[in-house]
Amino acid sequence: MAGNKCVVYVEPGKVKVEDIEYPKLELKEQNRKCEHGVILRVIATNICGSDQHMVRGRTTAPKGQTLGHEITGEVIEIGRDVEFIKAGDMVSVPFNIACGRCRMCKAGNTGVCLNVNPARPGAAYGYVDMGGWVGGQAEYVMVPYADWNLLKFPDKEQAMAKIKDLTMLSDIFPTGYHGAVSAGVTTGSTVYVAGAGPVGLACAASSQLLGAAVVIVGDMNPERLAQAKSFGCETVDLREKAELPDMIAQIVGEPVVDAAIDCVGFEARGHGMGAAEAPATVLNDVMTITRAAGRVGIPGLYVTGDPGGIDENAKHGRLGVDMGLGWAKSLSFATGQTPVMRYQRQLMMAILNDKIQIAKAVNATIIPLTDAPQGYVDFDKGAAKKFVLDPHGLLK
Amino acid sequence: MAGNKCVVYVEPGKVKVEDIEYPKLELKEQNRKCEHGVILRVIATNICGSDQHMVRGRTTAPKGQTLGHEITGEVIEIGRDVEFIKAGDMVSVPFNIACGRCRMCKAGNTGVCLNVNPARPGAAYGYVDMGGWVGGQAEYVMVPYADWNLLKFPDKEQAMAKIKDLTMLSDIFPTGYHGAVSAGVTTGSTVYVAGAGPVGLACAASSQLLGAAVVIVGDMNPERLAQAKSFGCETVDLREKAELPDMIAQIVGEPVVDAAIDCVGFEARGHGMGAAEAPATVLNDVMTITRAAGRVGIPGLYVTGDPGGIDENAKHGRLGVDMGLGWAKSLSFATGQTPVMRYQRQLMMAILNDKIQIAKAVNATIIPLTDAPQGYVDFDKGAAKKFVLDPHGLLK
Amino acid sequence: MAGNKCVVYVEPGKVKVEDIEYPKLELKEQNRKCEHGVILRVIATNICGSDQHMVRGRTTAPKGQTLGHEITGEVIEIGRDVEFIKAGDMVSVPFNIACGRCRMCKAGNTGVCLNVNPARPGAAYGYVDMGGWVGGQAEYVMVPYADWNLLKFPDKEQAMAKIKDLTMLSDIFPTGYHGAVSAGVTTGSTVYVAGAGPVGLACAASSQLLGAAVVIVGDMNPERLAQAKSFGCETVDLREKAELPDMIAQIVGEPVVDAAIDCVGFEARGHGMGAAEAPATVLNDVMTITRAAGRVGIPGLYVTGDPGGIDENAKHGRLGVDMGLGWAKSLSFATGQTPVMRYQRQLMMAILNDKIQIAKAVNATIIPLTDAPQGYVDFDKGAAKKFVLDPHGLLK
Amino acid sequence: MAGNKCVVYVEPGKVKVEDIEYPKLELKEQNRKCEHGVILRVIATNICGSDQHMVRGRTTAPKGQTLGHEITGEVIEIGRDVEFIKAGDMVSVPFNIACGRCRMCKAGNTGVCLNVNPARPGAAYGYVDMGGWVGGQAEYVMVPYADWNLLKFPDKEQAMAKIKDLTMLSDIFPTGYHGAVSAGVTTGSTVYVAGAGPVGLACAASSQLLGAAVVIVGDMNPERLAQAKSFGCETVDLREKAELPDMIAQIVGEPVVDAAIDCVGFEARGHGMGAAEAPATVLNDVMTITRAAGRVGIPGLYVTGDPGGIDENAKHGRLGVDMGLGWAKSLSFATGQTPVMRYQRQLMMAILNDKIQIAKAVNATIIPLTDAPQGYVDFDKGAAKKFVLDPHGLLK
Repeated sequence: MAGNKCVVYVEPGKVKVEDIEYPKLELKEQNRKCEHGVILRVIATNICGSDQHMVRGRTTAPKGQTLGHEITGEVIEIGRDVEFIKAGDMVSVPFNIACGRCRMCKAGNTGVCLNVNPARPGAAYGYVDMGGWVGGQAEYVMVPYADWNLLKFPDKEQAMAKIKDLTMLSDIFPTGYHGAVSAGVTTGSTVYVAGAGPVGLACAASSQLLGAAVVIVGDMNPERLAQAKSFGCETVDLREKAELPDMIAQIVGEPVVDAAIDCVGFEARGHGMGAAEAPATVLNDVMTITRAAGRVGIPGLYVTGDPGGIDENAKHGRLGVDMGLGWAKSLSFATGQTPVMRYQRQLMMAILNDKIQIAKAVNATIIPLTDAPQGYVDFDKGAAKKFVLDPHGLLK
Repeated sequence: MAGNKCVVYVEPGKVKVEDIEYPKLELKEQNRKCEHGVILRVIATNICGSDQHMVRGRTTAPKGQTLGHEITGEVIEIGRDVEFIKAGDMVSVPFNIACGRCRMCKAGNTGVCLNVNPARPGAAYGYVDMGGWVGGQAEYVMVPYADWNLLKFPDKEQAMAKIKDLTMLSDIFPTGYHGAVSAGVTTGSTVYVAGAGPVGLACAASSQLLGAAVVIVGDMNPERLAQAKSFGCETVDLREKAELPDMIAQIVGEPVVDAAIDCVGFEARGHGMGAAEAPATVLNDVMTITRAAGRVGIPGLYVTGDPGGIDENAKHGRLGVDMGLGWAKSLSFATGQTPVMRYQRQLMMAILNDKIQIAKAVNATIIPLTDAPQGYVDFDKGAAKKFVLDPHGLLK
Repeated sequence: MAGNKCVVYVEPGKVKVEDIEYPKLELKEQNRKCEHGVILRVIATNICGSDQHMVRGRTTAPKGQTLGHEITGEVIEIGRDVEFIKAGDMVSVPFNIACGRCRMCKAGNTGVCLNVNPARPGAAYGYVDMGGWVGGQAEYVMVPYADWNLLKFPDKEQAMAKIKDLTMLSDIFPTGYHGAVSAGVTTGSTVYVAGAGPVGLACAASSQLLGAAVVIVGDMNPERLAQAKSFGCETVDLREKAELPDMIAQIVGEPVVDAAIDCVGFEARGHGMGAAEAPATVLNDVMTITRAAGRVGIPGLYVTGDPGGIDENAKHGRLGVDMGLGWAKSLSFATGQTPVMRYQRQLMMAILNDKIQIAKAVNATIIPLTDAPQGYVDFDKGAAKKFVLDPHGLLK
Repeated sequence: MAGNKCVVYVEPGKVKVEDIEYPKLELKEQNRKCEHGVILRVIATNICGSDQHMVRGRTTAPKGQTLGHEITGEVIEIGRDVEFIKAGDMVSVPFNIACGRCRMCKAGNTGVCLNVNPARPGAAYGYVDMGGWVGGQAEYVMVPYADWNLLKFPDKEQAMAKIKDLTMLSDIFPTGYHGAVSAGVTTGSTVYVAGAGPVGLACAASSQLLGAAVVIVGDMNPERLAQAKSFGCETVDLREKAELPDMIAQIVGEPVVDAAIDCVGFEARGHGMGAAEAPATVLNDVMTITRAAGRVGIPGLYVTGDPGGIDENAKHGRLGVDMGLGWAKSLSFATGQTPVMRYQRQLMMAILNDKIQIAKAVNATIIPLTDAPQGYVDFDKGAAKKFVLDPHGLLK
């Protein structure tokens, strides 16, 4: 039997590539076969910003936690009950694991499926508190409820030609797009995206795809801001002393935008050079610069337990939010894991028909699976790159 | 020329009925005529919970602030440019003042009109920071942009017969309804309404009108809980030691509801007998007991300036909100003043066709305008009544 | 092995109860096991107006066509791959058969599932052109994709106590509700429902549940109109000479309503005593009396092949529709099979919490399965009854 | 006082430029001042396909009917009650005239305003049956309810630089966009647009702006098809013998698209060289090639009275529509005049920020006002041009 190399968490700041068990069509904890699942040969699997929360020690992830929830692969084995997915299919895997049979799934809320995580609604591959599923920064991975979860690419050759774009379908493209949609971005909108990491860049590119008139990206990392500029975004450098509304006004002529999206989450920092962590900074920023009756999209992650939180409240996810301000402006807010399935198919169509260059927008950079530890380090340092791991050397 | 008795704020805990100027069709600050306005003889005008924030000294309202934004009246004088409203019409006045000509009004967001308050989007009659418009707990009041703002009742006699219900159209019925709608209440929903004051009761009755399967109201005031029970709501008494999710579970069989609405706002208290003020308690409660992917409606008022706030943050409307919890559950949130116009006509139809007994639900209680000071005191003590002022003795 | 009595079509005007094969967990045409299916003991199964189209010879249904798509039952055998439904569960079966794995199902469009009918999107039990699935006016029936399709009642005893209501969840209650929802019925609406058959009555009751101010039902059958009146509807008798807009105006004060629903379909007749068939009459009526910018719901069935059509066009479902009128009024139209799953759970909650008396509204009338032939005859004659067949004598 | 040259209808096939009265701020029929109106110097005003229906004698337009409802201009005189629009403002005029004070306007349905046309909901400049308002293919024109109706451009110089694009905001850009939106076009959609006239081309360009993956345009005019190709559309030539679904399948791999839009209307012809008029052809085509559960947008005009209709039914707007087919596929349909105000601001933003080249897409071609008669003739012959009239020689 083949082995299975996989990225695992070792200790704060450190991951390694380790041999884990080759996946089986079984649910170990339940001690039974998983006949609705398939085994994938992983073709591409990306390092995600949310992995970094674990690797920085900002979650309760245990040593040995397998990593990886952004997975694209080829089906090499199918369970007995899988009816529409076939061996040989090339597929994208939504990072959310969903049963396709519960009330949430029936309503399209696959991010909070009720049947795949005993602890709470919602599950993912290779993530703490998300149901114990094995990660996919690996050579092989098992995907349950395959008929429901998988998106098949119509043509393998075409898919391999666009693999750097298509690999973004498992998480950050839908996540950025969901952030934009839930903030109400549409034709002619002025948009502010907080954070120029891969999700922020995907959100900015999605906003353009949605027809936004102006997309402004804010960050403190000049390399990432340059990346945002490279595909037509305006930028604001938050290391500057100027107030954010003033910087916005210089671009769009008024100190507010139609829609704002928090693509940073709980590890936010204050503004200015060397600013300390201030977990509600971005939330309060986006409220400040969203126009009255606007909507705020919050794809950036906020957690219920953060061992490294700046105070007792922050350690439990309780943050100082400017509710009075938000209320006075009649804002609304959308939070949570993106239900990837809701968007995946249409975004695939946009990629296959050249309506978006998502890989270029996020600067997709292919490295071997074995170089994942260095990729984690570089990404944590702020490289303006989205690392795509190549477990089998199939990518150019 | 007639005088004009009006309720005005004197000092914390005290209002009085004072003679103010009879209204003119003019905009004083702009030193020009207000030809789009009308003068109303006020038929009914209600004391609102949000008035109490001012009267308790929890806002920056100055001595002499005129009060009253829940107004129903008869048109007695019309400006030259008013085309469709006629003298003699009996009308309901949305508490939000709106121009009907700006981007927000065109989009139906009349709660944040851009042209009626130099300080910020949105205005109201008789309220601090809301544009300086004279209050309507008075004998007469001026209403600008009358063609846009006013809802005419189809038949005056029918209207007088249902005046105790129709007077709720100016604010609390639409506000409660908006809270329910923005929380996603629909046929078959299980609903939790935090707060059994008039807005909470209106929200509970609105939830029933929207087809909710179960409506639970929580409060610490037994008289108000009894009022909620009187029209078929379930109740939870927050003075009890039990945890809220457990109390919910006893009623609906699970510790969550489909939709929850915060009808309390920033003067919230913790649970249990004699609990101290804890301004984010209700927000965090409703997040706790809303199911995954649910929506939270927040018609309860949160302010940007509260001289009596429990700490420096609270004084500026910054509260300790459980963002991690909300995010983990993929909740969304809707805040702000209700755009009354969006709902007013359809709710009038529901009243006129006996689909709801809103006056009974909130225990509408008519008192003379001159008794307003006592009404404010009784209401502040927690009377399970909605006081309707009768400036001209026209109500039975 | 048990036999299985089932209602089958014999010839125009005639059905009989016949012994058919006891269901197996298999897909005959595909010559393979159906491990995602379950066998139900049928507790209640209703005669539907759409069955009558077949029985009147107005479709291409062959002799021997099994009938019945409104099914409530108890699970007595489960396929190997069924995970969440258990033997002993009491369940409602949506009349649409859906796979839960295709693009349409993922989007909630279970009425046009792509995987259950080789001929076209969408399938149903016991219906011509709908995929060849065996009907459920029977003692036993097989339900595929059981985890996806079935709605489990929370408590069997409670369910049996409300079985006359709950049996309407498989089709006509969701269908009437969908008609109302797709016509935009909401709080305070004035509504016209064309047709006082069971779907029309369910639509009228649903409109009330949705908060309509006034619900008007039109028909030519006095018994059915009396039934509509029995739960608070207004009625118009289409045998009268008066014009429909005038009759509407007498009730609501204007010749239009906010929303109108066609619950008749292609076997429509003109107005007045003894009017001949005129298949677009109802469509054109509802356009005439819907206000500008209104929406028209069309749950009434229109078909692509009607051997009894009044002319060559009608035989192929091409009808003389007043497009000019509809366009001038900016109307929109919603057609098609109701995706029952979208509404079923919330409507169950409404029934279980006594928010609607749907059985009373449609005059649910229980008869033995063996009396189905008489039930078909009576129903075709216009009895103001919804016949519920009782295959095992379990209903009171 | 200045004169006012205006295009007027003479007889079928003929218009002329005639001196009409200089506009006044008055409502002649009502014999009163129109203080809410403004006078515009017309900068650009376009010939519309719907004008051609009148000029071809396919409506009841009388001799002398003034023409022109696509108007962009500069405010040169304002009524006493106009508050926010100022003399000197450069503005776009929605072709729908709306009061901003009725139930329809409050709901955003400005295409069916209740107060501007005694005959029916909805009005327009220079159009038969649309309220008697004077047309704007003229040097000067009066616009009522100016604060409500007009969209002010933020900067006059910038506006003049993009005037060929901005002039499309008064009608065809919003109309094409509304068609696409009401058909559900979104990111990744496959789209079919019936008709390559200016509205069809605007709809195709709008579909691209909305993120469509593939946009297919069908017509019988090779010059117009070439125009569609020029900005990236696929095309089908309906003179060919092939069946439409087959031609669609050759492009997108299946015989259906996600969304289809009828941009032709009632003067439709059958397929093939020299096909005769067949008014429901396009309607039935778009139903045929829309996927199950799809939506059909119908911005193409259908009328209630057509003196040139092919038969008695067509003369009254009654057409042979394939209802059975539409119903079997669960399609929905949206019809009517586009409520331009709903989209105008956001589309202006898209133009001003270079997100669309709408003038290029429709081949905007400037001619002097005095050449309008030739423009009408050329356009009627099928020129792939959108004629923009230049009354004052202000356009380059």
